[in-house]
Amino acid sequence: MTIGTHDTGTGYEMKPPSYKADLTEVGRGKPMGELLRRYWHPVGLSRDAGDVPVRVQALGEDLVLFRDRQGRPGLLHARCCHRGTTLYYGKVEDSGIRCCYHGWLFDTQGHCLEQPCEPEGGSFKDKVRQPWYPVEERYGLIFAYMGPPDKKPVLPRYDCLETMDGGEFVEADDSSIGGGGPAIIPCNWLQHFENVADPYHVPVLHGSFSGPQFTNMMASMPEVRFETTDRGVAIRSVRPQDGGKVFYRVTEAIFPTLRVVPNPRVAQFARVESIGWMLPLHDTAFRIYVAGRVKTSGDIGRMRSKFNGKFWWDMTEREHQQFPGDYEAQVGQGPITLHSEEHFGQSDRGVLMVRRTIRNQLDAMAAGRDPAGVSFDPDAPPIVFEAGNYIRDV
Amino acid sequence: MTIGTHDTGTGYEMKPPSYKADLTEVGRGKPMGELLRRYWHPVGLSRDAGDVPVRVQALGEDLVLFRDRQGRPGLLHARCCHRGTTLYYGKVEDSGIRCCYHGWLFDTQGHCLEQPCEPEGGSFKDKVRQPWYPVEERYGLIFAYMGPPDKKPVLPRYDCLETMDGGEFVEADDSSIGGGGPAIIPCNWLQHFENVADPYHVPVLHGSFSGPQFTNMMASMPEVRFETTDRGVAIRSVRPQDGGKVFYRVTEAIFPTLRVVPNPRVAQFARVESIGWMLPLHDTAFRIYVAGRVKTSGDIGRMRSKFNGKFWWDMTEREHQQFPGDYEAQVGQGPITLHSEEHFGQSDRGVLMVRRTIRNQLDAMAAGRDPAGVSFDPDAPPIVFEAGNYIRDV
Amino acid sequence: MTIGTHDTGTGYEMKPPSYKADLTEVGRGKPMGELLRRYWHPVGLSRDAGDVPVRVQALGEDLVLFRDRQGRPGLLHARCCHRGTTLYYGKVEDSGIRCCYHGWLFDTQGHCLEQPCEPEGGSFKDKVRQPWYPVEERYGLIFAYMGPPDKKPVLPRYDCLETMDGGEFVEADDSSIGGGGPAIIPCNWLQHFENVADPYHVPVLHGSFSGPQFTNMMASMPEVRFETTDRGVAIRSVRPQDGGKVFYRVTEAIFPTLRVVPNPRVAQFARVESIGWMLPLHDTAFRIYVAGRVKTSGDIGRMRSKFNGKFWWDMTEREHQQFPGDYEAQVGQGPITLHSEEHFGQSDRGVLMVRRTIRNQLDAMAAGRDPAGVSFDPDAPPIVFEAGNYIRDV
Repeated sequence: MTIGTHDTGTGYEMKPPSYKADLTEVGRGKPMGELLRRYWHPVGLSRDAGDVPVRVQALGEDLVLFRDRQGRPGLLHARCCHRGTTLYYGKVEDSGIRCCYHGWLFDTQGHCLEQPCEPEGGSFKDKVRQPWYPVEERYGLIFAYMGPPDKKPVLPRYDCLETMDGGEFVEADDSSIGGGGPAIIPCNWLQHFENVADPYHVPVLHGSFSGPQFTNMMASMPEVRFETTDRGVAIRSVRPQDGGKVFYRVTEAIFPTLRVVPNPRVAQFARVESIGWMLPLHDTAFRIYVAGRVKTSGDIGRMRSKFNGKFWWDMTEREHQQFPGDYEAQVGQGPITLHSEEHFGQSDRGVLMVRRTIRNQLDAMAAGRDPAGVSFDPDAPPIVFEAGNYIRDV
Repeated sequence: MTIGTHDTGTGYEMKPPSYKADLTEVGRGKPMGELLRRYWHPVGLSRDAGDVPVRVQALGEDLVLFRDRQGRPGLLHARCCHRGTTLYYGKVEDSGIRCCYHGWLFDTQGHCLEQPCEPEGGSFKDKVRQPWYPVEERYGLIFAYMGPPDKKPVLPRYDCLETMDGGEFVEADDSSIGGGGPAIIPCNWLQHFENVADPYHVPVLHGSFSGPQFTNMMASMPEVRFETTDRGVAIRSVRPQDGGKVFYRVTEAIFPTLRVVPNPRVAQFARVESIGWMLPLHDTAFRIYVAGRVKTSGDIGRMRSKFNGKFWWDMTEREHQQFPGDYEAQVGQGPITLHSEEHFGQSDRGVLMVRRTIRNQLDAMAAGRDPAGVSFDPDAPPIVFEAGNYIRDV
Repeated sequence: MTIGTHDTGTGYEMKPPSYKADLTEVGRGKPMGELLRRYWHPVGLSRDAGDVPVRVQALGEDLVLFRDRQGRPGLLHARCCHRGTTLYYGKVEDSGIRCCYHGWLFDTQGHCLEQPCEPEGGSFKDKVRQPWYPVEERYGLIFAYMGPPDKKPVLPRYDCLETMDGGEFVEADDSSIGGGGPAIIPCNWLQHFENVADPYHVPVLHGSFSGPQFTNMMASMPEVRFETTDRGVAIRSVRPQDGGKVFYRVTEAIFPTLRVVPNPRVAQFARVESIGWMLPLHDTAFRIYVAGRVKTSGDIGRMRSKFNGKFWWDMTEREHQQFPGDYEAQVGQGPITLHSEEHFGQSDRGVLMVRRTIRNQLDAMAAGRDPAGVSFDPDAPPIVFEAGNYIRDV
């Protein structure tokens, strides 16, 4: 096989690649890091906060989660403010956590209560403070606010987790349901968030490639309308059905990291039954917390996809190639995808809309305004999502 | 043991070390990277190109090798030009490979044939191109050209793989025969290439150290003549034998990465029976592809050295110390050897000649000329090597 | 749980962290690296120097330790000065070590004795020198001097290892006794050295936290006096006992890396029975060599702490959390602790004194003077430490 001497489009002509740091990097002081810090984020299950300290990584910061014996959850910077030992080896007590090295005792707000090696139990303990973050518990999750204190919004309530149908209750899960793989997903969070606004990949990746991972109803190419809302992007897909009906499915990508995705196995035709929050651990890893209405404990975990009848971690390398899912597609984009090498089409309008609306929030913050979806009204009603699976007349 | 107060030559006086980046680094845009890109390189066995995509790393670039169902091998940049997912999870079809994420279909030259999520199957598919590299199959190997298209030479033929003796056929091997260790060798390629022009190490490393790894005939110190040829460096070693004969052995280091080394076990006295091509995977790893004339399938693999009766991977750490081979000697120089700390002798003339001739090619390219050994003549006769083991009269 | 809108002291206000490079980094040319290089350091047990070359990492340098067949220990730079192969694969001979690649033979002072591939066995061998360091054997250890040759002090003798009680002999150990974990401890050496001058952590970390790892006598909070001596910092702890007695314990942190710590299990009331030398392998790892007077071989190793009845390496993650020791506390400070985030109290006076006295030595060197504890007098008497456990009348 001889190839012409005037080959075009070869890799030799590629330009040095780059990524959009302002949309992806989550550290304090970075544009996206500061935007993310204007919202509450789940950092653990309620049951993670106990008398054994748990390591938490969130937005690139190393933290320790615990619950004092009075029942108050605490989220402290991991390095003890005295000599820097990690509080992961600390001991949880009635009123806080005690560092293993010299015994300084901190409450859930970082106040230093005891310095046992100091004269009179610590004459300067009021002058030190262990860095801490405010937390609230809701929906079986611990939420933390890691931003500027004077910008702390109220922790939102969501109608789909407040208004129960008969026999329902809320259950939380930390195994990254919806991520298509293990609990910690080694790529930038935005690669997953964009996926929420990308309904066209469903019939390809989850349809013709891996066999219908979801219902056959999801396997056909939809007609899609995208819309920017005051809280993110809504994606409305319509697939014609027999008998003059349409399968109408609405998914929402909500600021800053919410995936509001109706069950792709279409167990029921109704409003969305669960919400997922992505937590960026650092620039190149995230995990997903999910809370949803269930009738039986464990229902959330049972939503996990199988491939070729197996869980992701039981598959061979060859099976991962044959039955790729969201994990393969997104981690396959690299630790942070190289935006300079992308080529967008009509079907990528949702992804572009996500990026544009993020940029709008960055602009709003730069102009001193609050980003979308932030509320300071403790009496605000629960947020009602449009998301769901519905059967409608044409 | 007391040592004098005027110690000289201690490590305290060492200067900060450095290496010659222009001779070693293989990335696009680097001097050596550009020189290497003027030649064809093997990137896999013919049988690697099949209906399961294979990851290929070559000259620091991440690629995917496959063969469409019409039988055409393809070598594409691994990141899909649409949204950046790796084509390693793609599906091989009749006319190309289809990305798992949104189903774009590319042929072996990177033309986009389908965009199933786009209106009318992709109205702008002619405007995108998946970066690709031309490939050719020969000698059981897939060769790729990764350089500027208008500089693409013809893929050379070699007489020793074209002219068969009775019952012979050509066989290829990808297990880095000649490297002395595993298939992927974690150091810069030049450390191995220089070794080809270094016949004096043979009686030491492969003789007195590890016991005669090769024949006793190779264990004595040779008289050596080095010569720069129009395609690299020739090394001619003469060892006197009984009865007024000499063992005459010629090895060649051919641009850019060919090792033309007669069988060191001296199975036959004749022209060289195999060629090895080093493929730099990136700056600090390479592998070796070999093709040779054999009479029995598997003969190439049977050339692999044993040490103390064992394969490299079965040896203990202590055995690696007792029976070091080319792997230990070259990887032991570090990821990229520190040229600033070298001290050359008369016996290193071949190594210096290799470096000087590489520099000459870099100069030639800088002056707009083609490097040595590049031919644009499709009718050029096969290249005849001088390399071989011979018994001659004095 | 709702938290006020005016949260103070949260992690959001933290400043970018930093560490004191001048006190911690050990490389040649760094302030601390140069200070450390004015002293002898143990680099192996006497028995490590044998006819199998051993890899040694010390102060960031890669070395090879061996003993020629005449019995002389040698410590050479690992990279052969010829072509850079590691001498770890070299062969030990009567008068030195021979490189595996081309057979250059070096004696223990780096003189090149043979170049077998060179004409006449090496006409320029007097012009090359393998970088080496002077070594001396004492107390079962190999000590090396890696500093400027004209500043080489005498290797000190210590009374506690010279003056034996009945039936005692000196034994050496390389398993980092006193480090509380594995032999190689993955953090900066200063985190351990400071710990020696920090007696207050004992009743907390080794007392109330992990249960009395040591004797109950050590579990109470001491009254402590710190003093800068002409060789480091002395820490004198007094704990009242029954019957009008006091338990008087003196620990010393001696330049540059000596831990002179009486047995915390208080096996006997007398002068210190062992010394530990920290060896910084590189900026973020160290190990500890110990030599001590024992009556039974293996006594040093039997000093190793157990936690919950187990050795460190047999503990579960949960047990490491429940029974943290020096390893957890010091490695828990990170690879190099972030000094900018520390808050010191009265009980940290010893740590501050260590830092101040190190700075004084850096200043002395900058002014052309020798650092503390360096002696050039070969007839100097053995150093007598004050360290020990004693019972005294009030």
